[in-house]
Amino acid sequence: MKQMLLITIIGLLLTSTPGRASELFFAELDDFRLENGQVIRDCKIGYRTFGSLNEQKSNAILFPTWFGGTSAQLAALIGPGKLVDSTSYFVIAVDALGNGVSSSPSNSESQPGNAFPEFSIHDMVRSQHHLVNEILGIKHLYAIIGGSMGGMQAFDWIISYPDFMDKAIPYVGSPQLTSYDLLLFSTQLLLLEMGLRHQLPADSLLGAVSSIQMLGAQTPGYFVEKNTRDDFPAYFQNRLTNVSKTFTAMNYVAQLRAMINHDIARYFYGDLQKAAAAVKAELLIIVAEQDHLVNPRPALQFAEWIGTRPLILGSDCGHLAVSCEMERVVQAIEDFLKE
Amino acid sequence: MKQMLLITIIGLLLTSTPGRASELFFAELDDFRLENGQVIRDCKIGYRTFGSLNEQKSNAILFPTWFGGTSAQLAALIGPGKLVDSTSYFVIAVDALGNGVSSSPSNSESQPGNAFPEFSIHDMVRSQHHLVNEILGIKHLYAIIGGSMGGMQAFDWIISYPDFMDKAIPYVGSPQLTSYDLLLFSTQLLLLEMGLRHQLPADSLLGAVSSIQMLGAQTPGYFVEKNTRDDFPAYFQNRLTNVSKTFTAMNYVAQLRAMINHDIARYFYGDLQKAAAAVKAELLIIVAEQDHLVNPRPALQFAEWIGTRPLILGSDCGHLAVSCEMERVVQAIEDFLKE
Repeated sequence: MKQMLLITIIGLLLTSTPGRASELFFAELDDFRLENGQVIRDCKIGYRTFGSLNEQKSNAILFPTWFGGTSAQLAALIGPGKLVDSTSYFVIAVDALGNGVSSSPSNSESQPGNAFPEFSIHDMVRSQHHLVNEILGIKHLYAIIGGSMGGMQAFDWIISYPDFMDKAIPYVGSPQLTSYDLLLFSTQLLLLEMGLRHQLPADSLLGAVSSIQMLGAQTPGYFVEKNTRDDFPAYFQNRLTNVSKTFTAMNYVAQLRAMINHDIARYFYGDLQKAAAAVKAELLIIVAEQDHLVNPRPALQFAEWIGTRPLILGSDCGHLAVSCEMERVVQAIEDFLKE
Repeated sequence: MKQMLLITIIGLLLTSTPGRASELFFAELDDFRLENGQVIRDCKIGYRTFGSLNEQKSNAILFPTWFGGTSAQLAALIGPGKLVDSTSYFVIAVDALGNGVSSSPSNSESQPGNAFPEFSIHDMVRSQHHLVNEILGIKHLYAIIGGSMGGMQAFDWIISYPDFMDKAIPYVGSPQLTSYDLLLFSTQLLLLEMGLRHQLPADSLLGAVSSIQMLGAQTPGYFVEKNTRDDFPAYFQNRLTNVSKTFTAMNYVAQLRAMINHDIARYFYGDLQKAAAAVKAELLIIVAEQDHLVNPRPALQFAEWIGTRPLILGSDCGHLAVSCEMERVVQAIEDFLKE
C-alpha cells in the first residue's frame, strides 16, 4: 500500500502539465468486500490523472469508464477543447471493475474466470470512492462525468454518496434500465453463458455476441449511411477477428451482469422518483434521443423530477451522439462546470 | 401428381365462399432443381386458397409468407376488411420453402437437417411460379402481395417473371439488403451455426438467437411503451421457452441464408437501377420509416427510380407498422387493386 501511495504521488507530479498523456496507476484495495458479501482478493483499481489538483483539493473530477472501456481510452476525451478540460480541473480517469485493467475475471490470480465474484455498478462506485477518498486523499469531488455505463456509475454515485460531489454529468447513461435495454443485454448475456458452458471458442463467441451490441450502438439509418452493402463483409470479418485481448468474454459477462442489475431506485424500494428527490448534486443529464443502446426515457424522467433541463442530442448517431455532436456537448459541459 | 390435382380441385370448390377458413394443400413438385444446381427431393409446397377464381382466371393474387411465417398465419390477413379482400379476389397464400410446412430441413425425409440443400429467395419464387402456372393452371396473376421476407419474394417475382402479374405490393420488404440488415441477420446466422456445430440444445439456442430478431422488430420506443421493466423477466422467459415447433433452428438458418443472399440487382450485374427499369408490373411499395428489421432505404430508392409514390408508414411500431396502421394500409391496398 505504501509503495502504491509513493507511485501515486510520483504520478501526480508527472501529470502536472495539463492535458499531457498520463501513466496508468493501480490503487490497491486489498480484500475488497462487495455489496453481496463476497470479496475480491487483492483488488486493484486502475486509474490515470490529468491536470493538477489545486491546494484546496477542490477541482477534482472523476471520470469512470463505459462498458468495456479503459482509462487509456478516456484519455482521448480529456484535455483542452475535449469533453473535460484538464487545464482547470484535475481529472481522474478510473477503470471500472471487470474491464480487464482493474480487477477482473481475466486478470485475477486467485479468483480467475468463473471464480471471480459477481459485482455491481454500485461496487464499481464503492471501489472508486475508496480510491478517491482514502488513497488519493480527496474528500470531495468537484464533479463526476461518465458516459453509457460510466453514466450509470455517475447515477449511482449521486445516490450512494450524495454529499461527495458538487456536480454530475451522466451522458447517454441511465438511472435504471428499460425493458429494451434488458432485452439487448440479457440476450447477449444468455448467449455468452450458453456458449461458454458448452466450451465454444471464447473469442469467436465474443466476436459474434458483441455484434449484437453494434446493432444498438447507432441508428440503422446512421449505420447504413456509413457502411455500404459492399463494405459489409470486410466490416463483419473485422469485428469477428479483432476481438479485445483485455475485455474478454468473461469480463464482458461480468460487466453485462452489473448493467442488467443496475437500478438506483432499489435504494428507495423501487421508487425512482424518491431517488430523484434524494439527489443533492447539480446535474447535467445528456441523452441521445435516438439512443438504441441505453434508452433515454428513464434519464429524461429523472431530469424532469429533479427540475433540471437535460441536453437532448437529436442526431441519428444514436448512442454515439456525443462524438457526433462533440462541439455542442463540450460547450455545454464547459458552461455547466463553470457555473 | 394426379392425386394432388384432384385434391387441389376439391380445395378450390371447398374454398369458394369468400373469406372462409381454408384447408392446407400441398403441391408436389417432385424433384425440384434449385438455381445452385442442387435438388430438393419430393419437394412439397404448402398453400391455402381464399375466395373464388373467376372464369377468366384474372383475379388471382399470390401471397407468400414472411420469415418463419405460414399460410395459416396469413389467413388472418385475408378476408373482407383485411389486408387482401377475398370477396373479389382469389387469394393463394403460399408457404415459403424452409418454413416447416413446405419442404424444409425439419420435414424432409430424404434430406433432413444439414442434408437439405441451400435455397434462395429466387428458389422460393420459382417454386411458387411452378405451383401457380403448372399445378393450379393460372397463367397470369392479377397481383402479388408480400410482407417482410414475403416482400423480398414479391421483389424477386417482378424481376424473375416480369409479365406474369399486373400489380405487386411488397410491404416492409426490400429489393436488396442494406449493411444493417446484413449485420442483424448475419449475427443471428453466425451464432446459430456456431451453436449447432457445438451441439448446443437447438431450442434454447433458437430462443436466445431469435431474441436478436426482436430487437429489430419494433423501435426501442415502442417496445418500452408496451413492456415495463417489471414485465421483462416474464416476457423474456416466455420468448425463450415458447419456441416454434415447426420453424426449427435448422429452418431458421435456411431462411436466414436466403434473406442474406437476396438481391434482385444480381440479375443486372449489381445495378439496382437497371433492375428497376426492367419492372413491368405496377407497384405499391409500402415501407415503415422506422423499420429496424428491413431497412426501408433500398425500397424507397427503387420506388423513386420507377417513379411510383411509396406508402410510407411513420408510426414508431417499426417493422410492425402495417399492423399498427392497418386501416390506412387496407384502404391503400384496396384502392391500388381497384385502379
